[in-house]
Amino acid sequence: MKRTALIGHLDSAHAGQTVTLQGWVNRRRDLGGLIFLELRDRSGLMQVQVEPDSPAFAEADQLRAEYVAEIEGTFQLRPEAQRKGDAGDFEVIAQRVKVLNAAKTPPFELSKGENVAEDIRLKYRYLDLRRGEMQRTLMLRSKAVAAVTEFLDTEGFLQVETPMLTRSTPEGARDFLVPSRQSPGEFYALPQSPQLFKQLLMIAGLDRYYQLARCFRDEDLRADRQPDFTQLDMELSFVEQDDVLEVQERLLAHVFQRVLGVELPLPFPRLSYRQAMDGYGSDKPDLRFDSRFVDVTDLFRDGEFKAFAGAEVVKVLSAPELTRKQQGELERVAKQNGAGGLAWLKRDGDGFTGGISKFVGGIAAQLIERTGVEQGGTLLFTAGEWKRAVTALGAVRLALRDLFDLAKDGPRFHVSWVLDFPQLEFDEDAQAWTYMHHPFTAPHPDDVSLFGTQRQGEMRAQAYDLVLNGYEIGGGSIRIHQPEVQAQMFAAIGLSDEEARAKFGFFLDALEYGTPPHGGIAWGFDRLVMVMSGAASIREVIAFPKNNRGADLMALAPSPVEAGQLAEVGVQVYRGQ
Amino acid sequence: MKRTALIGHLDSAHAGQTVTLQGWVNRRRDLGGLIFLELRDRSGLMQVQVEPDSPAFAEADQLRAEYVAEIEGTFQLRPEAQRKGDAGDFEVIAQRVKVLNAAKTPPFELSKGENVAEDIRLKYRYLDLRRGEMQRTLMLRSKAVAAVTEFLDTEGFLQVETPMLTRSTPEGARDFLVPSRQSPGEFYALPQSPQLFKQLLMIAGLDRYYQLARCFRDEDLRADRQPDFTQLDMELSFVEQDDVLEVQERLLAHVFQRVLGVELPLPFPRLSYRQAMDGYGSDKPDLRFDSRFVDVTDLFRDGEFKAFAGAEVVKVLSAPELTRKQQGELERVAKQNGAGGLAWLKRDGDGFTGGISKFVGGIAAQLIERTGVEQGGTLLFTAGEWKRAVTALGAVRLALRDLFDLAKDGPRFHVSWVLDFPQLEFDEDAQAWTYMHHPFTAPHPDDVSLFGTQRQGEMRAQAYDLVLNGYEIGGGSIRIHQPEVQAQMFAAIGLSDEEARAKFGFFLDALEYGTPPHGGIAWGFDRLVMVMSGAASIREVIAFPKNNRGADLMALAPSPVEAGQLAEVGVQVYRGQ
Repeated sequence: MKRTALIGHLDSAHAGQTVTLQGWVNRRRDLGGLIFLELRDRSGLMQVQVEPDSPAFAEADQLRAEYVAEIEGTFQLRPEAQRKGDAGDFEVIAQRVKVLNAAKTPPFELSKGENVAEDIRLKYRYLDLRRGEMQRTLMLRSKAVAAVTEFLDTEGFLQVETPMLTRSTPEGARDFLVPSRQSPGEFYALPQSPQLFKQLLMIAGLDRYYQLARCFRDEDLRADRQPDFTQLDMELSFVEQDDVLEVQERLLAHVFQRVLGVELPLPFPRLSYRQAMDGYGSDKPDLRFDSRFVDVTDLFRDGEFKAFAGAEVVKVLSAPELTRKQQGELERVAKQNGAGGLAWLKRDGDGFTGGISKFVGGIAAQLIERTGVEQGGTLLFTAGEWKRAVTALGAVRLALRDLFDLAKDGPRFHVSWVLDFPQLEFDEDAQAWTYMHHPFTAPHPDDVSLFGTQRQGEMRAQAYDLVLNGYEIGGGSIRIHQPEVQAQMFAAIGLSDEEARAKFGFFLDALEYGTPPHGGIAWGFDRLVMVMSGAASIREVIAFPKNNRGADLMALAPSPVEAGQLAEVGVQVYRGQ
Repeated sequence: MKRTALIGHLDSAHAGQTVTLQGWVNRRRDLGGLIFLELRDRSGLMQVQVEPDSPAFAEADQLRAEYVAEIEGTFQLRPEAQRKGDAGDFEVIAQRVKVLNAAKTPPFELSKGENVAEDIRLKYRYLDLRRGEMQRTLMLRSKAVAAVTEFLDTEGFLQVETPMLTRSTPEGARDFLVPSRQSPGEFYALPQSPQLFKQLLMIAGLDRYYQLARCFRDEDLRADRQPDFTQLDMELSFVEQDDVLEVQERLLAHVFQRVLGVELPLPFPRLSYRQAMDGYGSDKPDLRFDSRFVDVTDLFRDGEFKAFAGAEVVKVLSAPELTRKQQGELERVAKQNGAGGLAWLKRDGDGFTGGISKFVGGIAAQLIERTGVEQGGTLLFTAGEWKRAVTALGAVRLALRDLFDLAKDGPRFHVSWVLDFPQLEFDEDAQAWTYMHHPFTAPHPDDVSLFGTQRQGEMRAQAYDLVLNGYEIGGGSIRIHQPEVQAQMFAAIGLSDEEARAKFGFFLDALEYGTPPHGGIAWGFDRLVMVMSGAASIREVIAFPKNNRGADLMALAPSPVEAGQLAEVGVQVYRGQ
């Protein structure tokens, strides 16, 4: 049972040769007494012709869609007239056909897969994965894994596996719990991330670590979340922020080059969190297109338009000419994202019409000059508290991108860094300070002194996000390596020594035994593959995903289990009071 | 903060240069006013000299064991007299020393690590991992991962991740369960292996798959078991057994060459299960040394020695001269492994003395001729039912290996295949037939017809084990790809259609939609690394292992969790009746 090659690896060099191919019957057509088969393997499709007088005919005649077949025949160019200068220019004239296995009629037509209800695709995932599109995505993902491994191994990173059955630390997301049979009444937790363990590996002196780590978060699943996901996790010792960014840039460039043949221009542009929010209303701005906000707070300050006169900021974004309908959609987006409304103006000659035009007579020239809005073009405004105003306008900016396909003229991939995130955020609900990344993120050296002062909200973290086409594909930070700074951080977020020890005791102990300066990053690997492959959702880049209820519709998990299994692990289903 | 290189990468080419090193203080000695530091990083140790008049002295004087330091100085050869022709021939004369972090006194002396109680080492794993031995093992493991990835990617295998939260199929070992919050009363199971999923990937047409897969089995842990372990999992379509063995041999050879620089001779020798058991009393024989059993059943048949006269088999193993004490130890081993006893003879001239010598007068010459036992040498016998007799003598053979270090003159690594395992075993306790590997293993094509007959016990499976130095490091099989054969297999092990569907329904459905011939294998990756690195136990090749109670002594897992967490996932601790 030996095939000559995968279909996609046959080329004109093989023309005239006898080849053996194995795969699935993608299509069968009978024409003028001949049988035409389209044979499929993961690398492509091949037209196979079986002539009526061929010894292969009888066997070939048994073949139906999705049957598994082995075909031996002459590989040749198709007649001149039928060539298109692609892989379809070749055909095989069968001398021998062998049915390797039969197939029931699939519940859906594979060629129409993308239009099939996702529940059906997930239930019959093994059929859905036969579609070329799905297979190309999984092949791309596999290539990315190999490229990552090659680069990091060469750069002295050690692949180390961290525990999957670990300790529950109620922090961040909800844990998945695993009852212990050997210690009844006690539980393991599945890791939300290897954060503490990778820092312990640095304390252990391993210097550089990586792992494609499966992480688990029991959250209510949004459209594009999975209960478990894969993170490319890395950590380095004796580094400062620039050292991490530099090696990350070369790694991502290597992956794009190896997997897609795309050269990413280095270094990646860097924006501060403040710049990103202020200019694009997002901490992961899509920079494939520009449309940057312009600040016009000063122009409206104390003006006749009361709504803007006293606002902390007034931001404006220029857009093409808009229909009433588009206008309405954008306003809805702005409101959904926290704005009171979306004021607008339409340029008309040296002035404006519509919207708030009656208020801008005096500042029309300056508005035109600052925004460069064209004749007939639209200006869109949000105003109010800074973060709220820019966030809403940022959502409007992305809606405009989708409306007018603004990204189409930009680069296929745009990567950038967002830096200088705040170390601490004030949680309005809890009325307390909390960390923005995680409590182990190191503050900027110049800002450490602000811990516990009125100005601790101004502290910058040594944290960085890697942004690709408007997606955050990576995030990390330099970590706190001094016990006293770690203590200040816990104090700043109102965590008492007792609470800190209860949650992270073993880690705080470790910090005292000679911790090197270190930092790292984690990539959302599923999301990276999604963007690289142009897939529509995370579920398209995972072989066997869960649906958004956390269910595996093929294997039917989760499922009830036998009472005996529960008794053994010392739990029972909770019946409430 | 830039180091010149890791310590181990410095060589005579750098002599005379100013270097910057970063690492841990392995040792400090003060001698004649000078400070001598041994600086350690993952690659090695470097002696650092700080002279009293050096600007670095004051800072250096703060350093204690396990402090983290950065040292700048002149890298040079040590005085002629002190050189040993190894890495220790170099030293650094410090011009600048910087304390990067302090360290508490470690709870144990790292240099004496291997003598420290394992519980202490596990509790302070981040310190235990600072020992060169541990770091070299983890580096070897990481190299093996990179070598595997490189080879399999080149050979067209796709790395695919299979589900971690899957369906409980009570079969084989006990499942670890994960309560579902979104479906209260239902549970996920952590995968015991990706077996069904990798077969589904073949059904999906992905052709070749691999994954370093974490697997979970909630079994009572023997000394060298972990609740979760790592398997190098592979599956191939359109292959027969020889195709799998061939690519596996090249893969293992590649890994040994890349990681250890060791060339494994190909192809690996092949033994049938029968040959392995009959000659060495094990289905994973250590073939670094020969000592093969000799069958002497015929010599004792109907003889005066009644214990042997009627035995199904009489097997003999020749050994060196033994002390009474050794004799006793070996007899204990034989009995522990199911033998009634361990009969013996000592060669004396052309005959024998001791043990059962009074019964062998007539066959002495034949015994000497067949076994080639030397003057003073010992013959050790087991007799009785075949499997019991060879298994016990196999244990004696390994005990002799350890007593006399028999493997020392053999190759450092010996790899072989064991083939032709029985398809079915009769389970005496259950008084029922069961599978030997798993229920998806395909029988030998010539034996399929024996299903359901009196002779089904003679069926050979298309199963293969990869054996290294007496350890099973891999096992796999060609799988059943025809639904009707799968049904015969389930029938043979007494699994009704209903039971089969309840356990594997979705998989049995998939089998009907065009399943290619396929087969695969899984390596016990932890065990492979253990043998390659010469580590004493599986725990030595895992960064953060559990102890044999399944506990993580560092992170303190498993642990009690908050009642609220349990209520959310719909379970409560079971209080029994």
